[in-house]
Amino acid sequence: MDQLPTREDIAKTHRAIQPYIHRTPVLTNQTINQLTEATLYFKCENFQKVGAFKMRGASSAVVALDDDLKYRGIATHSSGNHAQAVALSAKMHGIEAHIVMPKNAPSIKRNAVEEYGATIYTSGNLIKDREEKMKEVLESTGATFIHPYNNYHIIAGQATAAKELLEDFPDLDILMAPVGGGGLLSGTALSSKYHDALIKVYGAEPKLVDDAYRSFKSGKIETNDRIDTIADGLRTMLGEKTFQVISQYVDDILTVEEESIIKAMRLIWERMKIVVEPSGAVPLAAVLEHPELFKGKKVGLIISGGNVDLQELPF
Amino acid sequence: MDQLPTREDIAKTHRAIQPYIHRTPVLTNQTINQLTEATLYFKCENFQKVGAFKMRGASSAVVALDDDLKYRGIATHSSGNHAQAVALSAKMHGIEAHIVMPKNAPSIKRNAVEEYGATIYTSGNLIKDREEKMKEVLESTGATFIHPYNNYHIIAGQATAAKELLEDFPDLDILMAPVGGGGLLSGTALSSKYHDALIKVYGAEPKLVDDAYRSFKSGKIETNDRIDTIADGLRTMLGEKTFQVISQYVDDILTVEEESIIKAMRLIWERMKIVVEPSGAVPLAAVLEHPELFKGKKVGLIISGGNVDLQELPF
Repeated sequence: MDQLPTREDIAKTHRAIQPYIHRTPVLTNQTINQLTEATLYFKCENFQKVGAFKMRGASSAVVALDDDLKYRGIATHSSGNHAQAVALSAKMHGIEAHIVMPKNAPSIKRNAVEEYGATIYTSGNLIKDREEKMKEVLESTGATFIHPYNNYHIIAGQATAAKELLEDFPDLDILMAPVGGGGLLSGTALSSKYHDALIKVYGAEPKLVDDAYRSFKSGKIETNDRIDTIADGLRTMLGEKTFQVISQYVDDILTVEEESIIKAMRLIWERMKIVVEPSGAVPLAAVLEHPELFKGKKVGLIISGGNVDLQELPF
Repeated sequence: MDQLPTREDIAKTHRAIQPYIHRTPVLTNQTINQLTEATLYFKCENFQKVGAFKMRGASSAVVALDDDLKYRGIATHSSGNHAQAVALSAKMHGIEAHIVMPKNAPSIKRNAVEEYGATIYTSGNLIKDREEKMKEVLESTGATFIHPYNNYHIIAGQATAAKELLEDFPDLDILMAPVGGGGLLSGTALSSKYHDALIKVYGAEPKLVDDAYRSFKSGKIETNDRIDTIADGLRTMLGEKTFQVISQYVDDILTVEEESIIKAMRLIWERMKIVVEPSGAVPLAAVLEHPELFKGKKVGLIISGGNVDLQELPF
């Protein structure tokens, strides 16, 4: 896919990846609806394979490869959910996955990737170290690099979450997804606008890493000075492709305080009885912080994932 | 209901309480199936109203009251999920709930009951204090006392969880529920045996409070010397009615170590991404401790609830 995924591209991607993903449930909660005075529909990607929406994008990238490329395997550098998704996708297709992980990656994450049978390459901790090691690995293996978000196949894959949500609940007024690299938000925006151009699409972002908010306002990709948000999935900045989609199709980006993220996460755990990671609670945090935008509306929120270290909970 | 609920009693109860309860989902998990070499079906009563199966029994007890009794309200003494269920059932029927709670009940539990609009009466911490205060309240209000488990209406209500599970998955080999007072296990046994007399029914119980196990073996109701299990929902002993059903219809009671409960709870949180309370993890703990009974079988497990204090997790 060399250009922005069309409606048909997303539909085709959805059919192609169906054997490799779960159609995740949509949950509602009366107490949280009463509290927010809105009707919220939570698309539960925490129940997705590998515990996050990343499985959609990784599957999409793999099914798009021709047999010759598949044969040479796939690769990425990541210490998060994307690495697990690439590893599991490779396993499901019977091909090799080469994952570069920094020395300081938690052993729990290394183990998860190893369990899926991927080959792990250890690099230094800086982004530069990871990229250098990645280059070496790509040269020696001939594997295809799967970028975590700046890739139209990935965007088309992530778009299938909002597509399913709108199939189940076609008359939503607003859709909202968290924004880190922008793959999920880009896909959400495309699926929403293809469904109904009047649906509002918001990105939800921690104030501490508000590069997407600033990029959206300034018209160029901005970076973060600090990345110490609790929402560990959202510490990255936008790519050119995701920035383009977000600029064009997203209505606004809402930023939230760290305390709101923890409060929203706690509400979801206590009231909905599901495990969500901090990044997955950021959209609800945005509803809590900006109630006037949502009052009386039907709002779809993408819960991006549920991978948390139970030993390091913020409450 | 003056005698053991029949199949028809349970069906009638189910129809009557349907407006007041959720039909909860049944979840499966590949990783846990691989680990246990069994096919497990988790009936998720953690997603039930008030976060526990207790809402089924309380609703059943309330719908059975005639208008005159309803008018005088309902009452119980409890600091747990049953109190919340009685309070919410009363609220849904527009009647009064009178709840006796010990002085040392956590404020989080008092608040939950108060939020449902119940009147709270504070007693001393001993069972005897609670019962005395309860007697006073019943005399002054004329309210109907709703026992948490030793009541056929309650048993018929709790039976609807297994009934739904078997409607969704009719060919299970084994059903298992945790056992505390025995309401849930009694109901599970009745629904299972009415569905198919060949289904095996097990109770799962912490070894630290193995009164049900000992009662089952000795043929009379046994008590616990200590009640310091992490599974706070299972610290009670059987009642006459639940003991009768369990003796007659349950195939065995399996006991588990505290560490197995924590391990099972963690597995459910990490792999299934749902919040379950320690009591709700006891059946999976029994599968982990007694794998030979379950290998190759289709096993329905009732996850009794999801009410945990996030500040006091065991991991």
